[in-house]
Amino acid sequence: MGTRVAVAGASGYAGGELLRLLLAHPDLEVGPVTAGTSAGAPVTSVHPQLPQLAGTTFGGTSAAVLADADLVLLALPHGQSAALAAQLPPTLPVVDLGADHRLASAADWEAFYGGAHAGTWTYGLPELPGARAALRGAVRVANPGCYPTSVALGLAPVLAAGLVEPQDVVVVAASGTSGAGRSAKASLLGSEVMGSMAAYKAGGAHQHTPEMEQTLSAAAGAPVSLLFTPTLAPMPRGILATCTARLAQGTTTAALREVLAAAYDPEPFVHLLPEGAWPATASTYGSNAVQLQAAADPRSGRATVVVAIDNLGKGAAGQAVQNANLLLGLEETAGLSAAGVAP
Amino acid sequence: MGTRVAVAGASGYAGGELLRLLLAHPDLEVGPVTAGTSAGAPVTSVHPQLPQLAGTTFGGTSAAVLADADLVLLALPHGQSAALAAQLPPTLPVVDLGADHRLASAADWEAFYGGAHAGTWTYGLPELPGARAALRGAVRVANPGCYPTSVALGLAPVLAAGLVEPQDVVVVAASGTSGAGRSAKASLLGSEVMGSMAAYKAGGAHQHTPEMEQTLSAAAGAPVSLLFTPTLAPMPRGILATCTARLAQGTTTAALREVLAAAYDPEPFVHLLPEGAWPATASTYGSNAVQLQAAADPRSGRATVVVAIDNLGKGAAGQAVQNANLLLGLEETAGLSAAGVAP
Amino acid sequence: MGTRVAVAGASGYAGGELLRLLLAHPDLEVGPVTAGTSAGAPVTSVHPQLPQLAGTTFGGTSAAVLADADLVLLALPHGQSAALAAQLPPTLPVVDLGADHRLASAADWEAFYGGAHAGTWTYGLPELPGARAALRGAVRVANPGCYPTSVALGLAPVLAAGLVEPQDVVVVAASGTSGAGRSAKASLLGSEVMGSMAAYKAGGAHQHTPEMEQTLSAAAGAPVSLLFTPTLAPMPRGILATCTARLAQGTTTAALREVLAAAYDPEPFVHLLPEGAWPATASTYGSNAVQLQAAADPRSGRATVVVAIDNLGKGAAGQAVQNANLLLGLEETAGLSAAGVAP
Amino acid sequence: MGTRVAVAGASGYAGGELLRLLLAHPDLEVGPVTAGTSAGAPVTSVHPQLPQLAGTTFGGTSAAVLADADLVLLALPHGQSAALAAQLPPTLPVVDLGADHRLASAADWEAFYGGAHAGTWTYGLPELPGARAALRGAVRVANPGCYPTSVALGLAPVLAAGLVEPQDVVVVAASGTSGAGRSAKASLLGSEVMGSMAAYKAGGAHQHTPEMEQTLSAAAGAPVSLLFTPTLAPMPRGILATCTARLAQGTTTAALREVLAAAYDPEPFVHLLPEGAWPATASTYGSNAVQLQAAADPRSGRATVVVAIDNLGKGAAGQAVQNANLLLGLEETAGLSAAGVAP
Repeated sequence: MGTRVAVAGASGYAGGELLRLLLAHPDLEVGPVTAGTSAGAPVTSVHPQLPQLAGTTFGGTSAAVLADADLVLLALPHGQSAALAAQLPPTLPVVDLGADHRLASAADWEAFYGGAHAGTWTYGLPELPGARAALRGAVRVANPGCYPTSVALGLAPVLAAGLVEPQDVVVVAASGTSGAGRSAKASLLGSEVMGSMAAYKAGGAHQHTPEMEQTLSAAAGAPVSLLFTPTLAPMPRGILATCTARLAQGTTTAALREVLAAAYDPEPFVHLLPEGAWPATASTYGSNAVQLQAAADPRSGRATVVVAIDNLGKGAAGQAVQNANLLLGLEETAGLSAAGVAP
Repeated sequence: MGTRVAVAGASGYAGGELLRLLLAHPDLEVGPVTAGTSAGAPVTSVHPQLPQLAGTTFGGTSAAVLADADLVLLALPHGQSAALAAQLPPTLPVVDLGADHRLASAADWEAFYGGAHAGTWTYGLPELPGARAALRGAVRVANPGCYPTSVALGLAPVLAAGLVEPQDVVVVAASGTSGAGRSAKASLLGSEVMGSMAAYKAGGAHQHTPEMEQTLSAAAGAPVSLLFTPTLAPMPRGILATCTARLAQGTTTAALREVLAAAYDPEPFVHLLPEGAWPATASTYGSNAVQLQAAADPRSGRATVVVAIDNLGKGAAGQAVQNANLLLGLEETAGLSAAGVAP
Repeated sequence: MGTRVAVAGASGYAGGELLRLLLAHPDLEVGPVTAGTSAGAPVTSVHPQLPQLAGTTFGGTSAAVLADADLVLLALPHGQSAALAAQLPPTLPVVDLGADHRLASAADWEAFYGGAHAGTWTYGLPELPGARAALRGAVRVANPGCYPTSVALGLAPVLAAGLVEPQDVVVVAASGTSGAGRSAKASLLGSEVMGSMAAYKAGGAHQHTPEMEQTLSAAAGAPVSLLFTPTLAPMPRGILATCTARLAQGTTTAALREVLAAAYDPEPFVHLLPEGAWPATASTYGSNAVQLQAAADPRSGRATVVVAIDNLGKGAAGQAVQNANLLLGLEETAGLSAAGVAP
Repeated sequence: MGTRVAVAGASGYAGGELLRLLLAHPDLEVGPVTAGTSAGAPVTSVHPQLPQLAGTTFGGTSAAVLADADLVLLALPHGQSAALAAQLPPTLPVVDLGADHRLASAADWEAFYGGAHAGTWTYGLPELPGARAALRGAVRVANPGCYPTSVALGLAPVLAAGLVEPQDVVVVAASGTSGAGRSAKASLLGSEVMGSMAAYKAGGAHQHTPEMEQTLSAAAGAPVSLLFTPTLAPMPRGILATCTARLAQGTTTAALREVLAAAYDPEPFVHLLPEGAWPATASTYGSNAVQLQAAADPRSGRATVVVAIDNLGKGAAGQAVQNANLLLGLEETAGLSAAGVAP
C-alpha cells in the first residue's frame, strides 16, 4: 500500500494542483482531502479537471482527519496552519504551503501579516545551498512563497558570489491570477483581468518582501534591502520576476552566467537559458521547472536576472511535492515534470 | 533499452507535444527528431519548454533517418505523409497525425484536400466500437483530426443507438489557436486573436467535414449529412464542440445520458459530466481527457452534445501516444494523463 | 443646457458602458447615476476607466431620483424594471436594457424568466423592417438582448425573403464574459475563464430563446423553431453568433448575400463583409458595429450566417443610445462609433 | 472643407489606430493613406474594424503623395522617416511616430539604433513643463516612444521637484503585443503569447533607454542613469510601467502625490488615482488616458511610481493626434477620449 498524503485546503488552486500531482505520483496516493466552506461538496464540483476523484467529497479540516495520513500538505490561508499543525503528532511529516512558518523575525511577521508569530520550520527551497540535506532530515517544512521562490533562485547565487551588492535590490514581478486565490472578488473576474496588467500592494507593502530579504540576506552574508512590486498579469498561471541589483566592481554578464550555471547545471528543475534568450512563463506552465537568464549592464551599473516559474508549480504545489519527496526519502523528482505545457 | 520513437515534423505544436509526452513516458523514449525548415536548429530554440532536449538538434526528415526507430510518429503537413510512409519498412509501426490516410472516399479527398488519394489506414480512435481490437493488431494508423475526434466521441454512440437522426447534423466548434499551427501569419498574431472570436472556413468548407461524416455514418449505419462551422478562440489550446442532431421520436435527456454513460464509463479518458454540468476546455488542458454532456430539447426537437478536449492532447499528440501504446502492446494509458492542468 | 440622461443600475458592465457613451455624446449628458448595493460609493471605485466622473457617487435607485432626467436608461437585473418603470411619469422616455418588456408571450416569460409578465414595449432593434419609424414615435422601448440582437440581424432578412426555412434553426454563439455581468462568482474568475471555452445553459435552456423566436417568426411570417447554445469565451467582450437554417430550394450564397446587402447597405452600423471573409469580434470591440457574412452549403442543405457584435455595444449600451437618439429625435448615430477598437 | 491628414505606414497597428481616431475627429479628415508592402490592398483587408474605409486602398508611400495633405503623420519603421521628411515642403506640419527625430545624442542614436543620426525635432509630450507652448509653434514634431511616454509622465515631476535621486532609476514595464508591431513572427503568434509573460531586450539593451534618460535628465537638471527592462504581456494593448527611484532625504508618499497632483490636476488626460489604488491598463484601453499612482517606501529607500497607458493611445496614435491638434491650433483634446474601454 502506498504512502497516503492528506491535503488540507484542497478546494483552492494550490490544493487542486497538489491533488493533480499526487494522482500522477508513482509513490504517493491521495489520502484525506479537506476544505473549509466546501466541506461536503464533491471534489469534482470545484476541480472538474480531476475526474479520477469523481465520488470523493471534501472532508472538514481537522487534526484528527489529517492525522490519518503518512504526510500532510497544508494549503490553508495564512495564519491557519500553526494552530492546526500543533495538534498533529510531532513525528507526522508536514509541508506547510502557507506563510506561517517561514519568517524568523517576529517583528516582520507582525508588520506584514499580523497576529502571533508561530516560529520557523525548515525552509523548503532545495536548490539553496545546504537546503537539500536539511530537508532530507526534516519533519516540518515551510514551503516558500511563490514570489520568494523565483527571486531567491535568481539572486541567491550571485549575491553569495559577491557579484552584486546586497543593498538596494529592486524586483518587479508579474503573476498569473491563480496567485490571488479562488476567492470570488469582482477585481479578479475574467472581465476585469483579461486584457489588463495591474499593480497591487506596490510601494513595498507586499508581505513576501521580508521573506525575500531573509533568504537573500542569508545568501549574501549581509543584510539585503529590497523593493518589491507585484503586478497581476492576464494569465491563469506563471510568475515572471525581473530582479535587479547593483553590480559589484567588475561583474560581467559572463561572470553572472558562470555562477548561475555552476549553481544550476546539476539541478533537474532549474535551467539557465542560452545567452541572449530570456525566459517566458509559458515554458514552465504546469511543471516544476524554472527558467532564468542574467545580464550585466555597465551603463546603469545593474545586473538583471529574470526568472520564470509556474506559481502553482515550483511556486507552490510542485515545490511542496519536491519537499515531500525529500522528507520521505523518495527520489526528489518523483511525480514532477521539468517540461512545461506549451504552447 | 527502451522503445525508440521517431517524431517527424517535430518543430510544430503537435510535434512539441509528442516530444513532451514521450519524455514522460515510462516505456518509450525519444528517438530521431526531424523537421523541415528547422532542420539543424536546436530543439529548445523552437520548444524552450523542453529543457531535457537541450543539446538535441532537429534532423532533416527522411525515411532513412526515421527507419532507425521502433515506431514512427508523423506530424507533417497534409499531403506529405503518404510518400514518406511508402518508403518505410512495411513492418515498422507508424502513426500518421496528418490527414493523408483517414478518408476512404477518393472523391472527398480530392474535393477537400486535393491531390492524389493515398488510401486508408486503421482509424485510430480507440473508443469507437471495435476500434481498439483493430488497433492492437495494426501496423499503420491514421490518427483522427482534432475536430473529428470531438464530434465522433459526442455523436457516435447516440447515432448508433438510434436516439438521433443521421440527417442534418449541425456542429459548431471553437478551437484554440495551436490548431492553426505554428506558421507565422498576421491573422494568427497574438494582437489579432486575443480578445476575439472569429469564424473561418464556414459554410461547409472545412476539410474535416467528410471525416466526421465518414465516422458518424459508420456509427449510424446510414449516411450522415453534416454542417460544420469552425471558429478560432482566444486561447492556445482546446476544442469545445457543440454537436446537435434531430431527436428520434421519444428521445429524452436521460436516454442520451444513459447511452453515453454505457459507452464511456469503462473508458479511462472520456468523462460524462454530472447532469446539468457542461464542459469547459480548461478541464482537459494538457491532458488526453475528454469531457462531455448531453441534453434533449423537445421545444426545438434537437439533441445537444457538447464535447471538450485539448486539441493537442486527445485531438492530436495524446491520441497518437494512446494509439502507439496499442500498436506496441503496452498499457493503453501509459504516459498519458486523464487530469487537466487547471486553472 | 443638454438633455440629461439617468442611468439606473450604473454599477454593472452595461451601466459603465452607458456612462462612457454618454460622456462622449454631443447632445446628451450624464444625469442621475444610481445603483443597488454600490449606492454611496464613488463611481470611479467601480469604473476607474471613467476619470471624468471622479467626485460622483452612485445614488440609490428610485423613481423619484430617476424622474429628475429627460430620459431614463434602465440597466437592472431582469424582473426589476417593470415595477420601477410603472412609477415613472408616463411621458418620460425610458429605454429598458433588461428583459422585462421584450416578450409578447406571457407563457414564454413565465417558462424562461418566472414571475409576472409585464407586457411589451416597442422593441428597439432599429435595423428590423419598420422598427425605426416605430421607435421615432415611442416613449418606452425594450432594448433587445445581446444574443437576440446578433441572431435577429443575421437571420431576419433571409427568413423574410424566404431563402431559408423557419423550422429547425440552429444557433451557437460565443460571448465575452462581461455578458455574465459583474457578480463575483468563482466560475467567472479570470483564473477559470482564461484559456477556456465553456458551454452553459445548453440544450435549449437559455432565456434568450423565445426572444429570438419571436423576432424571427415575425420576420418569417411563420413560426420559427430554434435551438440555441450559448458558450463563454475567454475575452471580456464580443459575441460571435453562428446561425444556421435549412436552405429553401435553390438558395445560393449569392442570393443570401444579395438580400443581406439590400438590408444593410444603407445601415451605418451593419456591415456585410466581402465574400470569403468571416467576422471576428475584435472588429466590433468598443463600438456599435455589426459585421456579418453568409454562405449556402448544398452538401448539408443549410445556410450559415455568422454575426459579430460587441455585447456591450450593439448588444446593450450602444443600441440603447441608438434607441435614445431615435426617441429624442436626435441624429441616430450621434455619440456612436462604427469602428472597432482593434487590435 | 476639413483639414486633410495623411497617414504613412497606415497598415501597421499605430497606423490603424491613427485612422480610427481621424475618422472620429471633428476637425480632421483622412487624406492619403499609404503603406509599404500592403500598397494596393484594400484598407479593410488589413483593418476590418474600419468599415468606413471600405473602398479605400493603400497608396504607396512617397513624398509626392503625402504632400497632398495639410498635415502628415509618419508611422514608419525606425530609420525611414528622416529621408522621407526631408523631401516634404518645410512648412508642411509633420508628426513622426518613429524614433528618428527624438534623440539629441548622435552617439546614443548610433549605439541603440544604428545608422546616421537625423537630428531632433520638437519632442511631443505636451504634459512636460514647457512642452505645450513649444508644440503650438512647431512644424515638425517627434512623437515620443510608448515606453518613454509612460516613464516620463511618472518620473519627470518628482525628479524636477528633487523628491528622488537621478542616479539609479530602475524601470520594469509590461507591454501589450501590439507594441511589437504587425510583423508575422512565430514568437508573436497568439499560441505563444497567450498565457505567457516574457522578458525581451533585458539587461539595458532596449532602444528606448536613452530617450527615457534624455527626458528625465532634462527634468532633473542632472544626468539620470536608468536600467529598463521591457516585458511582453498577454494582451493586445497597454503599458504598465513600474518606475522606481531612490528617495531623497525626507520624501514621503504624501510629497510624491502632492507633486504629481500639482502637475496633472489641470491635465485632461493624466489622472492621479486616489491613494491606495494602483493603475490597471484596462482603464486606459482605446483612449488617450494615463493613470498613475506613487508611494514612498522607507524600508527600501525607494519611490515607486506606476503608470498605465494604452501603448497605441497615449503611447502612439492618441498622442500624435494630440500633437497634431496643437500644431494646427485646434482644441488639444479634439477627437480624443479620456475614458478607457472597459471591461
